[in-house]
Amino acid sequence: MEHRQDILVRFGARVRELRLSKGYSQESFAAKCGLDRTYIGGIERGERNLALRNIENIAKALDISLSELMRGL
Amino acid sequence: MEHRQDILVRFGARVRELRLSKGYSQESFAAKCGLDRTYIGGIERGERNLALRNIENIAKALDISLSELMRGL
Repeated sequence: MEHRQDILVRFGARVRELRLSKGYSQESFAAKCGLDRTYIGGIERGERNLALRNIENIAKALDISLSELMRGL
Repeated sequence: MEHRQDILVRFGARVRELRLSKGYSQESFAAKCGLDRTYIGGIERGERNLALRNIENIAKALDISLSELMRGL
């Protein structure tokens, strides 16, 4: 059975990939999400077990669905 | 513009729909998730802003991907 990284790490990598694909810096993305830049950094490093409302804020800032945000995770 | 219910309410309804489609009671589903039955009830009523690890536990208990769990939300 394949070892899978922790969900927080996988989610953080996905957020980072999508943020960069949209051309946002951490700072501009954080402002769009209504979150602190250091919090976004923590999410991308897999250090934050963030809750559904903030997950939705991230999807909205990326202009994608929650299902698309979670794709492949 | 269409009014959309709060994400917690929409997520709770989705969990309830999927749980029932798999034939689980709240109690048996809670045990499979490793969560308390009252906590599952609170999720289904849209009262819980649950975090990513518990969202993953729910997807695993339903034997679906996170993307599928979030479909339509």
